[in-house]
Amino acid sequence: MDQHYFEDFEPGQVFCSKNTFVVEAQHIKDFAAMYDPQPFHMDEEAAEKSFFQGLAASGWMTASLTMKLQVEGELCPAGGVIGAGIDELRWVRPVRPGDTLRTETKVLEVRASTSRPNQGVIKVKTTTLNQEDKPVQVCVGNLMVLRRT
Amino acid sequence: MDQHYFEDFEPGQVFCSKNTFVVEAQHIKDFAAMYDPQPFHMDEEAAEKSFFQGLAASGWMTASLTMKLQVEGELCPAGGVIGAGIDELRWVRPVRPGDTLRTETKVLEVRASTSRPNQGVIKVKTTTLNQEDKPVQVCVGNLMVLRRT
Repeated sequence: MDQHYFEDFEPGQVFCSKNTFVVEAQHIKDFAAMYDPQPFHMDEEAAEKSFFQGLAASGWMTASLTMKLQVEGELCPAGGVIGAGIDELRWVRPVRPGDTLRTETKVLEVRASTSRPNQGVIKVKTTTLNQEDKPVQVCVGNLMVLRRT
Repeated sequence: MDQHYFEDFEPGQVFCSKNTFVVEAQHIKDFAAMYDPQPFHMDEEAAEKSFFQGLAASGWMTASLTMKLQVEGELCPAGGVIGAGIDELRWVRPVRPGDTLRTETKVLEVRASTSRPNQGVIKVKTTTLNQEDKPVQVCVGNLMVLRRT
């Protein structure tokens, strides 16, 4: 698998996930029981009466699955996908049981590090989409990337 | 457990976690295998040679555990902890096996919703701290909160 170094990135490039992930109701409930124990993420009946009007995944589960899809995807930065911080994270649509997720990561900015000559930072916007090509999450983050030289 | 409505919140208030969470090496590896499959989150030897210089939790695991601590903690907004979006998320220090995590959530802003008269939004800064009271994550987010009236 070809790794991408700092020098390989430029604004406007788009890198997609190679895999998709099918979200199951039990997965939503199990994640929530461990990390986000609220009724609307763990029980269909409670979820129906809630803001979400039906079982919906924790936003942090969507964020974690997005990381998985991105790590396994085309982006492949040399040294790994290492976040230098998130500038924006929005959950724009609920993730429901049966949804199939994929990601698209667009390079927004490429900048050299002034303090670390062997690396740079790329700012990327990663959109997580469902099987209807509708976004469920938008995340703008900064990744550290090694220089080739 | 007393729920807090929109009217109960004001800038400067701090709400703490009630529980702490001890991070174990196996948990770091299991989370990574599912959501962030990179060698430095799954294998001690690979981790030693990496940027992290030792096994470190995925930032998304830290974020998810932060959610758990916050949901179980003092904040307790009426209607649940429902994120309207994250404005900033920074991992300021690695989370290591054996670390004990807790959270402090400070209210930064309180604003009524113009479109939804029965709710408002609070902007909060949640700091996740380790057993040495050093921050491992800082997250600025917006939560939807129901009005009492």
